[in-house]
Formats: sequence, structure tokens, C-alpha cells
Amino acid sequence: MSENLNKLKKLLGEVSDINRAASILSWDQQVNMPPQGGEARGQQLATLSKISQEKFTSDEVGRLLEDLKREFADADSSSDDAAMIRVAARNYDKAKRVPPEFVAEQAIVATKAFEAWVQAKGKSDFSIFRPLLEKNVELVNQYVSFFPPGDHPYDTLLDDYEPGMKTAEVKAIFDGLRPKQVKLIKAIKDSKQVKDDFLHKKYNEKKLWDFGVDVATKYGYDWSRGRQDKAPHPFETTFSVNDVRITTRYEAENPMAMLFSTFHESGHAMYEQGINPKYERTALSGGTSLAIHESQSRMWENLVGRSLPFWEHFFPALKKTFPSQLDGVSLKSFYKAINKVAPSLIRVNADEATYNLHIMLRLELEIGMVEGTLAIKDLPEIWNAKMQEYLGITPPNDAKGVLQDIHWSYGSVGYFSTYALGNLVSAQLWEKINQDIRNLDDQIRAGNFSELLGWLRAKVHVHGHKYDPQDLVQKVTGSKITPEPYVRYLTKKYSEIYGL
Amino acid sequence: MSENLNKLKKLLGEVSDINRAASILSWDQQVNMPPQGGEARGQQLATLSKISQEKFTSDEVGRLLEDLKREFADADSSSDDAAMIRVAARNYDKAKRVPPEFVAEQAIVATKAFEAWVQAKGKSDFSIFRPLLEKNVELVNQYVSFFPPGDHPYDTLLDDYEPGMKTAEVKAIFDGLRPKQVKLIKAIKDSKQVKDDFLHKKYNEKKLWDFGVDVATKYGYDWSRGRQDKAPHPFETTFSVNDVRITTRYEAENPMAMLFSTFHESGHAMYEQGINPKYERTALSGGTSLAIHESQSRMWENLVGRSLPFWEHFFPALKKTFPSQLDGVSLKSFYKAINKVAPSLIRVNADEATYNLHIMLRLELEIGMVEGTLAIKDLPEIWNAKMQEYLGITPPNDAKGVLQDIHWSYGSVGYFSTYALGNLVSAQLWEKINQDIRNLDDQIRAGNFSELLGWLRAKVHVHGHKYDPQDLVQKVTGSKITPEPYVRYLTKKYSEIYGL
Repeated sequence: MSENLNKLKKLLGEVSDINRAASILSWDQQVNMPPQGGEARGQQLATLSKISQEKFTSDEVGRLLEDLKREFADADSSSDDAAMIRVAARNYDKAKRVPPEFVAEQAIVATKAFEAWVQAKGKSDFSIFRPLLEKNVELVNQYVSFFPPGDHPYDTLLDDYEPGMKTAEVKAIFDGLRPKQVKLIKAIKDSKQVKDDFLHKKYNEKKLWDFGVDVATKYGYDWSRGRQDKAPHPFETTFSVNDVRITTRYEAENPMAMLFSTFHESGHAMYEQGINPKYERTALSGGTSLAIHESQSRMWENLVGRSLPFWEHFFPALKKTFPSQLDGVSLKSFYKAINKVAPSLIRVNADEATYNLHIMLRLELEIGMVEGTLAIKDLPEIWNAKMQEYLGITPPNDAKGVLQDIHWSYGSVGYFSTYALGNLVSAQLWEKINQDIRNLDDQIRAGNFSELLGWLRAKVHVHGHKYDPQDLVQKVTGSKITPEPYVRYLTKKYSEIYGL
Repeated sequence: MSENLNKLKKLLGEVSDINRAASILSWDQQVNMPPQGGEARGQQLATLSKISQEKFTSDEVGRLLEDLKREFADADSSSDDAAMIRVAARNYDKAKRVPPEFVAEQAIVATKAFEAWVQAKGKSDFSIFRPLLEKNVELVNQYVSFFPPGDHPYDTLLDDYEPGMKTAEVKAIFDGLRPKQVKLIKAIKDSKQVKDDFLHKKYNEKKLWDFGVDVATKYGYDWSRGRQDKAPHPFETTFSVNDVRITTRYEAENPMAMLFSTFHESGHAMYEQGINPKYERTALSGGTSLAIHESQSRMWENLVGRSLPFWEHFFPALKKTFPSQLDGVSLKSFYKAINKVAPSLIRVNADEATYNLHIMLRLELEIGMVEGTLAIKDLPEIWNAKMQEYLGITPPNDAKGVLQDIHWSYGSVGYFSTYALGNLVSAQLWEKINQDIRNLDDQIRAGNFSELLGWLRAKVHVHGHKYDPQDLVQKVTGSKITPEPYVRYLTKKYSEIYGL
């Protein structure tokens, strides 16, 4: 192997070790840390982040990448080494463009903005958050200015989460999707509603936990390389391909969320566990983008975990576990209840049919803020108007409207659309999978997920960061990300449930 | 404040952050890590250790320390800053003397030696471990050669664990102690033995855990800055003065060990929680030596936790918790049982009266190995002869003899005596405490430990690394480490229990 490549791998391997050490510290912070441990932990994380950044943006890494780009100019561009150099060089270029002083300033403003957001949300008063959000957006625009101009300033932001994806592409996808989802929701609203009161009874936490673990085990989540803990928010985190952990939580008002969180996070985790072990400690480790990651979690949560065949297998066991709560509830009623559509104010509680509309609203507002065509002061009003337009409901206050999400408080803009894109990709992959595995429903009905997981491993997981998201979807399904499969999936599913 | 001092604090603060991040990774490895996570974790720890070492031994740190030594030459030597510079300079000097290649070689040999030790212990065959132990001792001598010659080569090794302590001092202390402990044990052996069968019944793990937590809480272990988990071996670990954790374990054959482990580790933890917060991220953070640390853990485990006044308070609750196991057992019988003396083969299971003899045996062998006056091949034979001489028993095989401890497998020599010194210091402090707090027994009998903890905080804990162990003991008790208080303590306690 090239001596330069060896040197680069050694240096980037150390950067990866530091970053993953930081992930362990963050996981511990959310799962185990005693109440007073926060200040020192923040300091430790800041030090690790600083060292990682210094090491990654060192002149030596820059020189090696320059040399390697020349060395590999004529190499097979599909080789792992070529891909590794390409991705590392892109990350290096991005990291070098943003001055460390800017990163520090953004972190300080984010802390203040987060505090203002907490206060504003508590008092449901947008005016408290407004000046900080204005500052955040100013910094976001400054961030964009460090990069060569794209077709749209928002492209730079999107690229951090979905490498290679353009704002125009996302807009086109969403423009195709929005009227169809709005129409579907209207039709559902005019139909006979489903009953789900039995889902909101008291369910024993330990039993829900065990049931979730049992499903994740059958899915194929490898516990010898993972574990589940409780945390305030469900998440997946990766310390190595052999140590991929998930968390879940118990919500008294919505006990079933514990189960579906486990399904969702185990989907993320199986992606990470399936990445080529050769990519460890290189730029190719980890899932390739947030949308592709979300396609995996959403697939196991929804396309599998909220499907009828799935519950044909698991409902008898669930009923046995919760005999009083599910007394007299048929499989069909249960299936309908967990798929109930109800336009609601809060994104994170949204069902499959309405979720994307929450995202589209946010994307439009973000683009407007970044373009400067939307004044921050008008945000609450526009938010409420769009909620009425898309979902037919209007938030009673800012806390349940424009202030509900944490993302803008820490200056994160460009993230939201990945959730909706993930939904689309999950359905697009699903159509392809069902062409390749003709009796998939029967397998699921038998509680057998190994062929499905094998397919995902071979087509998606194993590649890690090697392909950009659009290229990966193209390679696997024959076309770039497109909304049609998701529309077909929603329409079919909800036509049956609501008799449309 | 001096600009140089500010710079040094910043640099050493980062080194401290990295080291504590490594501690978090190690804790996680022992408490949470899934089975397959080990290889990547080893890599991550190696990277953190390398970066910490590079940063700490950088020329910049060296220059700053030189400048600061001059700058503080006339400063009050008892000031925190002067102490911090003194301790940091000593650590720097030590770290600089040992070449990184040597550290790497020692780590590689240690890994091989550890594997050989595991195999040798499994087969109870010293000859498998012998060549690796010879290599380890060779490296230990090479390590010693990096330092200016002391009065004895073993001084260099001891100094890493007990800064400032000399081999001759430890030998003198042990020489004074050994005949008295041997004599005491003989007298006990000739007395009526105590009954402890009820301690080895089945005790519910959860209830033992809760009881231990209750005691640690009453002791004053601050759970808002700590937590307890299960691990294969009990230990204490510090992530910051506000995050000090302990572990314990359940042993079916010896269930009470779970309780006493919690007492012991909470003693370590309260020491760390009590250190001056100003010392955080400097060379003065953490306990000053292993012996002083052990004096704290042993005090809460034994001088408090195995005392009659303690159980006068807690025995009724214990009996209520385990009514069938302790049916018909009186307070006195229970107290005698948990203090039963029985010369045994295994150090970690030894009682208070025999424990130090296990240590003395090891110290003599270590000194012989390092001096070269003892051939490694003769180790098993000499071990067995000394066991017979000191404890009146002979190991049936090497696994229960010379191969029982892990320490030599990873090349750690110089560590053992700190355990015995800790016992001595605990009794020495205890005499002083009882002069200062005249009704301490009554307080303990009432389950009140706050004045005791307050005393330890003010006299020992708060100082962190500021004073070397001998200086600290001198400062607090009026004399250096001496065996007499421990002998008095043992003689009084066991004379009562065994009617000597």
C-alpha cells in the first residue's frame, strides 16, 4: 500500500478514536452521569473536540491528501481507497474553511440561544428567542460565506447532512409530495375515525422493554455488539462497528412509544453494525447521510413494525403480555390504532401520513430565513398560517408552534428535511426489496427478518460512507430519491385502514 | 496570576481532561461494554494515552515548568501554586525519563505476560509464566536505570505509588510489625474459634445492594456526585470531583463481601469527593498516594464498618432485612463472625489480622527479584516456605500460591506494600480522630458519621496531592507512618473477640 495512504490512515484513525471517545462521554452524560457531573464533562468534551479538530486540520493531513489525490488520480474511482481519500478530502476542505474562532463563537451563541429558547418556550413567548435566532441565522449565513457559492445558499447547509444534495432537488421532491399528502389527510379526516383509547392505558414499563428487546433481537440487532439503556431521549450511538448502542424511554401518556422507539433505534443500530469492518477508523465508517440513516430506522419502525404481517406474528404475544389492556381488542383494531392519523401540532408525535408536512413547513421557513426573504419577526405568524394550510390546525401558542423544536436554538439549519427524505427512501427501498424478496410479507408474518436484513446489509449497510446518498439510492433502486413510492405506500395503507 | 502559570494550567488542564476521558472509557469497558467491543476500545484508550503523554511531555510544558520553578523559587512553599508546580515538575521529570519506545515495549510484553499468566494460573503451572515474568523484571530494572540511583533500586518503583517513601522505611515498618502479627495469629489459632456459617447462606443480591447503598449514604457518599454499578471487580474511579463512581459485585459463596466492598469503595470515593475543587484539572487533584487512599477505604470498611458500635446501629435493620438467614444470631455472634480470623491462601480474602502478612511476603519477594538476589525459578518454593512461616499454611499448588495475583503479570512491581501501609495509616489516623472526637463511638452507635467525615475532609481529603504521604501523616498525626497504632488496634479488637 502507498506509504502516504498508510500515514493518512494512521492520523485519521487517531482522529476517529478521539471522536468516538467523545461519543462515549456524551452517551455516558445522557445515560449515567450523576447530576453534578455536567460542568467537568462539558470541559472534557470541549478538549477532545479541540484536539480532534487540530489533528484533523493539521498541515500534515492537508499535504498527505494533496499527494494522495495526485497519486490516486488514475486509480479506479470505485476502489475503497479512492473513496476514502475523496470523502476525507471533502471533510478536510470543509473543516479548513471554517475558522476555529468562528466555531468557538457559534458555540457560545448557541449556548445563549439555547437558554433563551428554553425560557421562551416555557413562557410561550417568541420575542424572548427572536434576537438570538436572528443572531443564529446571521452566523449560519456567515458559515455559508466560507464556502464557494452554490446554486442556492441553503445548498451549503444541506450538504453537511446530505452530501451532494441540492436545495432545488429537495424542493422539487417536496413540491411533488405536498399536494398528495394534503389531499390524503383531507380524505382521512372525512372518514370514520379509528379508536385507540386502549393504547393509552397503563402498560408496565419492564414488560414493554422486554417486548421491544425481543423484537429487536428477532430483527437481528446483535446484542454482543450493542446494548439498550434508558435516556431522556431515544438515540443510537456508535463507538465502533462492534459497539453500537441504543436508548429508549417510557412515556406514561404514550406507553407504546417505548416499543416503537426500540424498533426505530435498532434500525439505526443495525445499519451501523452492518458497515464493512474494513472501514473502521476511516472516513468511510458510519452511515452515509442522515436521510439514509433515517430510511433504515423508519423502515424497521414503520414499514415493518407498523405493518399488518408484523402484528399477525407479534400481536398474540403482546396480548398475552398485556391481557387486561388489550382485552377484547382484535388484531385489526390494534393495527388500525397504531396507525391512527390525526393532524397534530407537534412534529415528534406525528403519524406517518402527516409527518412530512411538518418537515416541509420547516424547510420552507429555513430557506426563507437563509435567503432573507422571511423576516424572523414574522415567523410565528407564517408558521401558524402554514399549519392551517397543510394540516388544518392552528397552534394555540408559540410553545406548541414555532418554538417546539430544539434545532434552531443551537443554530442547526438544514437538518429537518433529512427526516422526510428518510421516509421517502424507506419506501423507495421497500418497493425494490419486495421485487427481490417476493414472499417478504410471509416471512415477516413468520417473524423471520433475516433475508430482509441480509438484503439491507448487502445493498446499503456494508458500503458505509462510500457512496453519497443520491448515488447509493440510484445504485440500489435505479433512480434518485423520488416521492412516488412513499405516496403509493401511504395511499395503499391508509385506503385500507380508512376505507377511502 | 503569573502568565506562565496560566499557560501551564491550561496545558495540564487539557492533559487532565484526556486522562479522565480515558477513565470514563475504562469504566465503561468494565461496567457496560458489550462483549465484542474490546478491540476498538483498546485502540481508543491507546490513542488517548499517546496524546496525553505527548502533550504532557511537550517541550512547552518543560519550558514553562523551568521558568515557573525560577519564578516561584522564593514563593511560600506551602502555597497551592508552589505545590502544584512542584508536583507537576516531578511528574514531568518522571515522564521525560522514560522513552516512549520503552513504554510501548513494556505494554507489548505486559500483554503477552498477562496471557501467559492466565494460562499458567489455569493450569497451575508456574513454568509457563516464568520466562515472561523474567522479562517483566528485566524491564522493571531497565525502568529503574532511567532514574538517578536511590539508596535502593526498589526506591524508584515505590516512589511511583508512595512519593517520597523509601524502601528502608517500609522495611523498618514491616520488620516492627511482622513478629507481632505472627504472634497474634498464633494466639488466635490456639483459642476457641468463632462460628460464621450463617454468613454463607443465600442472601438476596438486591437487598444487600440496597443495604450497602443505605450505609454509604449515611457515611456521607454524595450520590449527586456519584453512582454505584456492578462490575467483575470492585473499584472506585474519578471523572471529576463532581463525578466519583464506585462498583461492587455479588459473590454467591461470600455474599457479605458485597456490603463490605461498598463500604470500602465509598471510602475511596469520599476521599475524592472531598478534594479541594480548586485543584481540579491540576497536578494536585486526586488522592496523594495509594496508601493514603487505602487508609480511607480501609477505615470505612474495617475501623468503622466492622466495629461493634457500627453494628449496634445497623444490626437490627440487617436482621429485619434477612430474618431467616440471621434467625437466632445475636449482635455479638454477628460481630465476631464478620471479624473471624483464619489464615488463608488468598490475599484478597484475608481478614484484618492476616492481611498484612500476605503483603510482607510479596514485598520481600519483589525486593529480592529487583535486587537479583532471588532467582525467578525459585519463586514458588520461597513463596510456599514463607506462607508456612508467616501463616502456618502451605499452598497446595501454584495457582493458589505464587500465581494468585494479577500485578506481576502486567509488570507492576512496587504496588503491594501500599495495601499494608494503608492499614497502618488507617489506625494511626483513627487514634488521632478518637483524641479529637471523644464520643466517636457514641456517634457511630447512633449512625452519625458527619463529624468523622468532616474531620477527614479537613485534615486529609481537602489537600489532594498537595502533601506527600509521609508529610501528610506527620502533619495530621504528629509522626510519620508507624505500625504501633495498628498493632494496638488489632490486639485490642482480637483480644476481646477471642478472649486472649
